[in-house]
Amino acid sequence: MPPTKTLAEFVIDTKADAIPDWVLHESTRTLINLLAISLSASRHPTAGTLEAWARAEGGNPRATVIGSGMRTSLGHASLINGYLAHLQDYDDTHFPTVLHPTAPTWPAVLAAAETTRARGRDVLAAFALGAEACCRVALSTHPWHYDEGWHITGTVGAFGAAAGAGWLLGLDSTQMVHAFGLAGTQALGLREVFGSTGKPLHPGKAASNGLQAAQLAKEGMTSTDEILAGRRGFWAVLCGGKSNEEALLAGLGERWELKNNGLKPYANGIVSHPIQEAVIALRNRHHLQPDQVQSIAARTHPLVPELMNRPNPRVGLEGKFSFQHCAAAALVDGAGHDAQFTDAKVLDPVISAVRAKVSATPDKSIEEEEVHLSITLTDGRVVSMHIEHAAGSPKNPMSDAALEAKFRALATEVLDEQQAERLLEAAWRLDQASNIHEVMTLASRQTAASPG
Amino acid sequence: MPPTKTLAEFVIDTKADAIPDWVLHESTRTLINLLAISLSASRHPTAGTLEAWARAEGGNPRATVIGSGMRTSLGHASLINGYLAHLQDYDDTHFPTVLHPTAPTWPAVLAAAETTRARGRDVLAAFALGAEACCRVALSTHPWHYDEGWHITGTVGAFGAAAGAGWLLGLDSTQMVHAFGLAGTQALGLREVFGSTGKPLHPGKAASNGLQAAQLAKEGMTSTDEILAGRRGFWAVLCGGKSNEEALLAGLGERWELKNNGLKPYANGIVSHPIQEAVIALRNRHHLQPDQVQSIAARTHPLVPELMNRPNPRVGLEGKFSFQHCAAAALVDGAGHDAQFTDAKVLDPVISAVRAKVSATPDKSIEEEEVHLSITLTDGRVVSMHIEHAAGSPKNPMSDAALEAKFRALATEVLDEQQAERLLEAAWRLDQASNIHEVMTLASRQTAASPG
Repeated sequence: MPPTKTLAEFVIDTKADAIPDWVLHESTRTLINLLAISLSASRHPTAGTLEAWARAEGGNPRATVIGSGMRTSLGHASLINGYLAHLQDYDDTHFPTVLHPTAPTWPAVLAAAETTRARGRDVLAAFALGAEACCRVALSTHPWHYDEGWHITGTVGAFGAAAGAGWLLGLDSTQMVHAFGLAGTQALGLREVFGSTGKPLHPGKAASNGLQAAQLAKEGMTSTDEILAGRRGFWAVLCGGKSNEEALLAGLGERWELKNNGLKPYANGIVSHPIQEAVIALRNRHHLQPDQVQSIAARTHPLVPELMNRPNPRVGLEGKFSFQHCAAAALVDGAGHDAQFTDAKVLDPVISAVRAKVSATPDKSIEEEEVHLSITLTDGRVVSMHIEHAAGSPKNPMSDAALEAKFRALATEVLDEQQAERLLEAAWRLDQASNIHEVMTLASRQTAASPG
Repeated sequence: MPPTKTLAEFVIDTKADAIPDWVLHESTRTLINLLAISLSASRHPTAGTLEAWARAEGGNPRATVIGSGMRTSLGHASLINGYLAHLQDYDDTHFPTVLHPTAPTWPAVLAAAETTRARGRDVLAAFALGAEACCRVALSTHPWHYDEGWHITGTVGAFGAAAGAGWLLGLDSTQMVHAFGLAGTQALGLREVFGSTGKPLHPGKAASNGLQAAQLAKEGMTSTDEILAGRRGFWAVLCGGKSNEEALLAGLGERWELKNNGLKPYANGIVSHPIQEAVIALRNRHHLQPDQVQSIAARTHPLVPELMNRPNPRVGLEGKFSFQHCAAAALVDGAGHDAQFTDAKVLDPVISAVRAKVSATPDKSIEEEEVHLSITLTDGRVVSMHIEHAAGSPKNPMSDAALEAKFRALATEVLDEQQAERLLEAAWRLDQASNIHEVMTLASRQTAASPG
């Protein structure tokens, strides 16, 4: 059977009850993480730019934009929510491929769920299947696709949105094949725009295009029987003709890629997380002050200097892709939330002074979630640490308690504590809820505080 | 100066009065052609599918969908109009690159023009500059980009939409550079879906994404300073690292690529047009009947069998990419309008019988607009013809009179004769009009016939 059809049939044939509980629990965790970071991101100026664009365009108020109180069309809501979910670079990561499966998939599923009124367990199942689909497609393209310069979250993400939304909309097998085709021919996103406010448009468009692909395929629009393996399909054109069909299909329904998907403790490019964890641990253990530091030296996976070597970031967003800034902010502030990546933080003289003392040496024997880090102090002492599996990596996942702490820290930038708690509870209970309504209403905006 | 910035500055610095009259006249002709084919295409079922999707989504009624009477958002209108313009494969072609510049560019310009209320001459200028921008980008990527499997009309078309809309919206140089970046990172469209009803989504999305890129860049959204030549930019990632910067920039403002852009006399893949012209000429000269034909043999450019070898098309759309069907329908009906590419025509026993007798031999010494064609008759006679420059090719452009005949044939599928004439006159007069309003109102739908 052609590989795209095999994947499509897996998606449409899997019922919610066949999905393991831990997969649905992990799906709930990715939703809580998405709500937290999207609420925080909704305060960003370019989120307002996109919302103003959507208001001028207009749309029937059928779906919810997180954090803004805006109700709009399914397309606009999924676009903006996809944008918000990736705007702080604080979304989850599928470690084997650097795909961020949530930012394109959840917004498409949420918009479809608001109109189909699916029960909560089915909403979680739709996400789980969408995430599985895009992680599998990502695996089938890795590493050639990302190495060529594609932002895999924008390109492959559209398959996740189409699968999740298509499952909720009840597509049949042929329709799902064509939905994948319509999504795949709209794959988009170049790594060239990394570091700009345009980058999060990639998962936003993956979400809205994938959702629309499912809607149009359901009404009979066609594409191709084989978007992945076709002569001029995704593998041929966007992967230099290389592919891994085995990784796409082996063990579908038996092993689930959410196992390899990690939530982030820091709001920046993931490859520097081990550095930040080591710096914060040494800072706290030895009560280090910025003026005590003579140098910070890391031995790291080669992707760290390749992706994040920006010794002199000029704006906050560039700081997120500067391992030097990440390390310096971790030492000075002891954290790596979005608050550590404002324009002001990047220009802060204390952080800038530390930043100039940070170096990273690539070492092919070191894993992505690993670091050897030493801080040399002005008094001559050297303090060191080896992180084998940074928090948030698959072998050391973020705990539910840590996720709740992250949620509270970010959600309360927009909601009062009471509403944030109610939203957190509603999200944890989604598995038992009759639909997504309560979650989206609470996530939409701060409502008037309830009396007493 | 970086090439993207050079192109951006050419676009924004060129005033309407600096554009040669023949370029504005050619722009008017492409608009008349677009109106004709879009009116005819508006009757197609999948056009209705897309319109139903847009109605469900909703949008402020600020722009016009051709042929449907629908007023909707700028994004939806440009999407649907871009879809309509390419749905019959009847739009114009930039011969050096096989780009169809009108389908992505005009719909973005029209939508922007409806809200900015630009004067008619500026609307034409915006299209001319948009078309020039996307033809130049296409030249810079040719032939590597198309050969890799990209549908150049979807990918490069977004640059035309961004340029045309951006000029109307008054972007400055930096904004236009970022608009190109936002458009280029959203380049999409695989040749894999050729022959499906999803294919025209490519210019539709190029139009709406390019327009949105200009809108967002005007409000400060960023992308990259160099989308074309950047390390992971368009040339690196979508052209296998090959590019022709000279073709992008040489003689900007001195020579105009609309000179190499042809209008189509037949509603199908352009490479078989010489075959159709020869078959129709021989048919008419010798009063040929289908049962007189023993074989039809063509010596052609190699692209004919490469792109259009479909001996047994099953549906009308496949017939458009079957040189065998194009030749057979030309012999039986003496024409190649959309009416020759219905499902019924593909299944017609008379046409099918002729189709089985058609062959094409590739010959590298033959140009794309050329054919040597012989028809062997059942009585042993052979009639032959050599077409050097098929009608609609740059060296033998379609005359204004032939364009008007095409317009009348197609527009009257939707509008009565009187309204079609009024629309044609309004389009020819656009250069002198105070805005695009009359053209779009008349193109929107059949209005009540005026008395007497």
